[in-house]
Amino acid sequence: MRNADIAEFIANHGVDLSWQDSFYQWMHENPELSLQEEQTAKHITARLAQMDCEVTTGIGGYGVTAVFRNPSSEATSADEPTVLMRADFDALPVQETTGLPYASKNDGVMHACGHDMHAAALMGLCAVLDERRDAWHGTFIALFQPAEEVTAGASNMINDGLAEKIPTPDVCLGQHVLPGRLGTVMSAPGPVLAACDTITIKLYGKSSHGSRPQESIDPTFLAAMIVVRLQGIVGREVAPSDFAVITVGTLSSGHTNNTIPEDATLVLNCRFYDTDVRDKTYAAIERVVRAECDASGCELPPEFEYSAHGELTDNTPSTFEHVRPVFDAVFGEDSIDAEPWTASEDFSEIPRHFDVPYLFWTIGTTDPELWASGEPVPGNHHGAFAPRIEALGTSTDAALAATLSYLFRS
Amino acid sequence: MRNADIAEFIANHGVDLSWQDSFYQWMHENPELSLQEEQTAKHITARLAQMDCEVTTGIGGYGVTAVFRNPSSEATSADEPTVLMRADFDALPVQETTGLPYASKNDGVMHACGHDMHAAALMGLCAVLDERRDAWHGTFIALFQPAEEVTAGASNMINDGLAEKIPTPDVCLGQHVLPGRLGTVMSAPGPVLAACDTITIKLYGKSSHGSRPQESIDPTFLAAMIVVRLQGIVGREVAPSDFAVITVGTLSSGHTNNTIPEDATLVLNCRFYDTDVRDKTYAAIERVVRAECDASGCELPPEFEYSAHGELTDNTPSTFEHVRPVFDAVFGEDSIDAEPWTASEDFSEIPRHFDVPYLFWTIGTTDPELWASGEPVPGNHHGAFAPRIEALGTSTDAALAATLSYLFRS
Amino acid sequence: MRNADIAEFIANHGVDLSWQDSFYQWMHENPELSLQEEQTAKHITARLAQMDCEVTTGIGGYGVTAVFRNPSSEATSADEPTVLMRADFDALPVQETTGLPYASKNDGVMHACGHDMHAAALMGLCAVLDERRDAWHGTFIALFQPAEEVTAGASNMINDGLAEKIPTPDVCLGQHVLPGRLGTVMSAPGPVLAACDTITIKLYGKSSHGSRPQESIDPTFLAAMIVVRLQGIVGREVAPSDFAVITVGTLSSGHTNNTIPEDATLVLNCRFYDTDVRDKTYAAIERVVRAECDASGCELPPEFEYSAHGELTDNTPSTFEHVRPVFDAVFGEDSIDAEPWTASEDFSEIPRHFDVPYLFWTIGTTDPELWASGEPVPGNHHGAFAPRIEALGTSTDAALAATLSYLFRS
Amino acid sequence: MRNADIAEFIANHGVDLSWQDSFYQWMHENPELSLQEEQTAKHITARLAQMDCEVTTGIGGYGVTAVFRNPSSEATSADEPTVLMRADFDALPVQETTGLPYASKNDGVMHACGHDMHAAALMGLCAVLDERRDAWHGTFIALFQPAEEVTAGASNMINDGLAEKIPTPDVCLGQHVLPGRLGTVMSAPGPVLAACDTITIKLYGKSSHGSRPQESIDPTFLAAMIVVRLQGIVGREVAPSDFAVITVGTLSSGHTNNTIPEDATLVLNCRFYDTDVRDKTYAAIERVVRAECDASGCELPPEFEYSAHGELTDNTPSTFEHVRPVFDAVFGEDSIDAEPWTASEDFSEIPRHFDVPYLFWTIGTTDPELWASGEPVPGNHHGAFAPRIEALGTSTDAALAATLSYLFRS
Repeated sequence: MRNADIAEFIANHGVDLSWQDSFYQWMHENPELSLQEEQTAKHITARLAQMDCEVTTGIGGYGVTAVFRNPSSEATSADEPTVLMRADFDALPVQETTGLPYASKNDGVMHACGHDMHAAALMGLCAVLDERRDAWHGTFIALFQPAEEVTAGASNMINDGLAEKIPTPDVCLGQHVLPGRLGTVMSAPGPVLAACDTITIKLYGKSSHGSRPQESIDPTFLAAMIVVRLQGIVGREVAPSDFAVITVGTLSSGHTNNTIPEDATLVLNCRFYDTDVRDKTYAAIERVVRAECDASGCELPPEFEYSAHGELTDNTPSTFEHVRPVFDAVFGEDSIDAEPWTASEDFSEIPRHFDVPYLFWTIGTTDPELWASGEPVPGNHHGAFAPRIEALGTSTDAALAATLSYLFRS
Repeated sequence: MRNADIAEFIANHGVDLSWQDSFYQWMHENPELSLQEEQTAKHITARLAQMDCEVTTGIGGYGVTAVFRNPSSEATSADEPTVLMRADFDALPVQETTGLPYASKNDGVMHACGHDMHAAALMGLCAVLDERRDAWHGTFIALFQPAEEVTAGASNMINDGLAEKIPTPDVCLGQHVLPGRLGTVMSAPGPVLAACDTITIKLYGKSSHGSRPQESIDPTFLAAMIVVRLQGIVGREVAPSDFAVITVGTLSSGHTNNTIPEDATLVLNCRFYDTDVRDKTYAAIERVVRAECDASGCELPPEFEYSAHGELTDNTPSTFEHVRPVFDAVFGEDSIDAEPWTASEDFSEIPRHFDVPYLFWTIGTTDPELWASGEPVPGNHHGAFAPRIEALGTSTDAALAATLSYLFRS
Repeated sequence: MRNADIAEFIANHGVDLSWQDSFYQWMHENPELSLQEEQTAKHITARLAQMDCEVTTGIGGYGVTAVFRNPSSEATSADEPTVLMRADFDALPVQETTGLPYASKNDGVMHACGHDMHAAALMGLCAVLDERRDAWHGTFIALFQPAEEVTAGASNMINDGLAEKIPTPDVCLGQHVLPGRLGTVMSAPGPVLAACDTITIKLYGKSSHGSRPQESIDPTFLAAMIVVRLQGIVGREVAPSDFAVITVGTLSSGHTNNTIPEDATLVLNCRFYDTDVRDKTYAAIERVVRAECDASGCELPPEFEYSAHGELTDNTPSTFEHVRPVFDAVFGEDSIDAEPWTASEDFSEIPRHFDVPYLFWTIGTTDPELWASGEPVPGNHHGAFAPRIEALGTSTDAALAATLSYLFRS
Repeated sequence: MRNADIAEFIANHGVDLSWQDSFYQWMHENPELSLQEEQTAKHITARLAQMDCEVTTGIGGYGVTAVFRNPSSEATSADEPTVLMRADFDALPVQETTGLPYASKNDGVMHACGHDMHAAALMGLCAVLDERRDAWHGTFIALFQPAEEVTAGASNMINDGLAEKIPTPDVCLGQHVLPGRLGTVMSAPGPVLAACDTITIKLYGKSSHGSRPQESIDPTFLAAMIVVRLQGIVGREVAPSDFAVITVGTLSSGHTNNTIPEDATLVLNCRFYDTDVRDKTYAAIERVVRAECDASGCELPPEFEYSAHGELTDNTPSTFEHVRPVFDAVFGEDSIDAEPWTASEDFSEIPRHFDVPYLFWTIGTTDPELWASGEPVPGNHHGAFAPRIEALGTSTDAALAATLSYLFRS
């Protein structure tokens, strides 16, 4: 009954969200790279200023929180539940090729991972909660997080004293848009997003004039051998039933045509669902890189820098069991099981910091006919990634559904 | 007798060249990249302005010529010889590590190929000719050339009407400093510098999120396979007795950690002493690159752009036979045979344009004890390339010797 | 109750199997390569000759069947169940290093995959059924199959008219020994063994004297590039969540030191749990090999020969549900769930030929302390693979349990 | 005058050599591999038995010498010159594809390097010297050497006491047939054949079932990486003006389709004209191989075995100056300068052992029209290598010319 009531409320909440599309499109047109999201944070704060909530800005960079209490006093009973929902809002160094009327105005920067939609949906949820205080009770925290793409935003907010700036949540929620049939809400218990790390490898060769390779230790040839041999780790050292990705996202060596450079840089992105596989693979990567440097006769050892660490996103089973029936009630056959997604997220650092359960789900954004056709659909991080704007409604409803599964005044 | 007289003159010309060291050091401190040599050209022009010569600036960019007539009127007899000597004056995108008191002030830019010394030596030659008109007759053209490192300066000056701006020379001269016993002047007839080309190769893969390689065509892996296989051309397709260099001077793929990029760029530098070997090697490079793109399943073919073409520097035997005895007279046992040098130069485009003979020689710049020790010496294009300043005197004397072999008034 | 009775019977059947160890050890000492198992087949037939059954030999090579009817006349009622159990009996070209007292006498040949134990266990089952006809009814077919390692034996027997030589079974059974805690019997429904193919690739280069590579198309360098690039398929083209193995089992190129050979041969072994992944991977292998031949400038295309095709071993769920409770009754906590095994088998060709359900399970053979220690254990196909002889008893009991789950006279 | 007399004698010596073609063809039809040349040695000895000379057989295997004294007594004056000429006579493991009527009868074995013609020409020389003792004086030693292809025959003969079995020569001669205009005799002073070594490299991985690469250290993948990286030594570490060949003549890894093998073997053939380049290259090969083993995580180090060492063939200038005018007199315009040949020979071990001067020249064997066409001609060690039989006459005449330059009785 309660779940049906929540569904009924979501279908008929009566709050005017007509501003939401342009709020979203402004973000899409004005993408900002990670750690530089100044204008985006202002855009968010300006809208929150119209609501009855406690806004904190500048947390760990451009992080923003808004605390909604109901009744709206600090005296909310300790018995009342506190729910945190997080949306990220940074963009990527990708050239947009969607041709959308609201395509990016910032050359080479794009909201190619849908964070604009995450933020707009969370803002819609805030608006409904703000105007329909009759329908819920307890405390809701909207957390707008910057710098997700560089796996820095969550930890920056935490390290900047997040726990002192907001009430302690009982549960944390998050969502992500991706290719999939428009309107679907995908959820699952357990591991849903991979663990990841960025490994930056600096190789030190020896420079020479391009015509005298015998006086050089060519770091470009060395880097190429490493790139080739890294895939040998995946094919020969990882069990075929285990999940491991080693992607060289950047290879940069040399600046001119006729000088063999002094050094080269590789930036790797690695993903796993299992810590043992990860540890074995990192050991193999370091072994291969060091040995290839020896094979080239390098005089200096390579340097490894691990960064952008992302933990496994591992949905709490009890949280899934609590929220999923509400999704089923609200979305019917569009509430489906999520396959594990190979991407990674720093969302889960927040609930882990508070030591509370969490759920992270995904939203399909692809035209149903296109999806059914089996034709390739540009994915996240691709310059042609273009979520259908209708997915903004789905995202808002999913956010409402999960939040109200805890806060609905039945 | 005449050669001995020239040697005697060079040893005792009496012209004050005390300014020459600081002229050189200013250039070394203020290096400018190819095609951007504005301040360097002004530095040269300012010194020429103190001499009795006809200066033309801005030829094909920052090119400068100075014509010295003796007697100093346009009416120099057509029977009198005309000699052109060229010095280049651009610098390189290399970080200087010499620790010299006059090291580069421009971060990441360095006179790492000694062009500063070439220009300072030519300026010294001009000063002697200017002040000691009693010792010579005919016409001398000092040609200060920009943009040698990008194989553009000579052709730019030619295409900008060089032939209309200066008298037609009877012979062209050029020199280059390099590691070698300080004080030596190295010359040889025939091929002394290699032919070269820059080949820029653009590879088109398919981008995806770094965690979903199966949706990508990874251009970084493709580029690595190509880099590796190109050396197979040298080792397996070029006859071991033939000369061929394939250097990948730049490999650039990707900008971020977690996106497999759309494309990658290779910049190759290739050198040869033989046209057949070159043609066979270029065909092999294109064959390998195209096939590797096929192996990766690329949907777009690779693109090849040839640039910075450098012809063989092939000293005219009769010019060598004319100049070498004067080198022998002036430098004694320090006038030695040059080994073919694997570098390339656009110097020879100038005499080829005028269809006149030419000679290009080299000057050793390394401390004799260090040279004799067999220890490695940083070569041209290396951040620690540091010619001994005494080589400036040798270069000036060599320039005088070769010029006066034609113009000395005996 | 019935399952408990079967367990009770197995524990106390009273049949003398004291000959079984030496029957097994003789096989281990006298391994024969696939398709050459003449003496092994005689060894099997000699023992069957002592039993009341109908033996057929020479089926598809050295294949042997023994049909046990109970009551022992052709007139077994059509209502009575017919069970087939298969054991393979060929050995491998592996040098044994176990140091066992009954180690291989045939240099370079070894029962390194436990087929000797499979055959000995099936023979034990036959002996019990032969002597304890009071305990069962129906028809039992023991099928001794040669040439499993080359994925030829099952199809050879089928193509040689197997269906005409034995009654049609209602269900087929098979088992395999492997590293695992001694005494365990591992079973699961669905895919338990991978599909596989052998791909033999012949590469045609051009021969020359070893000192004149420029006159050759070096097939060894070409083969090496292919071996390297094949792992790139696994790492870059197969989704990290999919299962694919590409192993180059044999690379053979050249016979002498100073001749670049004419051709090279690669023998690949590929494994999958999914037909789409397989098809995509085979297309990628062919694409890579053809393109690498192009990159080498080969004048002849490569040749591909697919062989040793192994289908997925995909246990029938209803068969699993029928047999597993008996395993549980007989083995208690040692009846455990099987993980999918990456190896492949031609066993399933037999039930597929008869279009009947089947079950294939595995038996742990490793000393429990060693297994618990986590130390590496030499696996199947390794020269030190040494099943504990106690596993022969477990294998015999498992064969009895599964067979009697259908034939037990309760 | 003397040279013209030698030419005149050679043109009209009057000795019947009509048996020589069939002597040669028998050898071509009956090739024997190195160290197994039993029948070939008998064939040679049988012919020598018809001449007035001292034959010694079985020297260092199947080596044969024949000493011709003139006058034919041991008492040849110490003042008289002693000339040794050597011919090798082993064949290669190559499948003949010439289609010649006298093609090899031994499957997979072929005289693909012309040693049959060397031996037949030396035998012709012996016959002329034997029958025309009026025309010469002194001592001639015919040395028929086995096992040249494995660089063992010369040292085997030396180590078996060659110096005690024959008189000490004053000079040693040798020749080789190869592609080139028929009738030409090619000679040069100084380095004419490369130094070489065979390096056999054993790699120790870890075996596993082909479906479980994660339990293996795959020696095939390792070997492939090494093969690829070795060419990087040629392209990146050897100066482009230096001569170095690294050929992997044999790569052998694995015997079956579905087992990752325990080890792999590479057999390299390396050639140089310079000891420093060789030493640097061998150090690089060992460095690369060891480091690649580290990159694969090998538990055992690789093993290197150097064999088949061939020294530089470095013709003594004074010997060249003595013989060449006779070649010019005999062959006119067909006596031409030899280019350095990249092949290697153990011939020079013999003169080095005696510490005497030597000359090694080559004979063109290709149809003149074919040669002039520029079409590719199958070279030595190729299954289609087919010297024109007319080259046998040229080889005999060249052997006569060089020998008589020392022994002619003028």
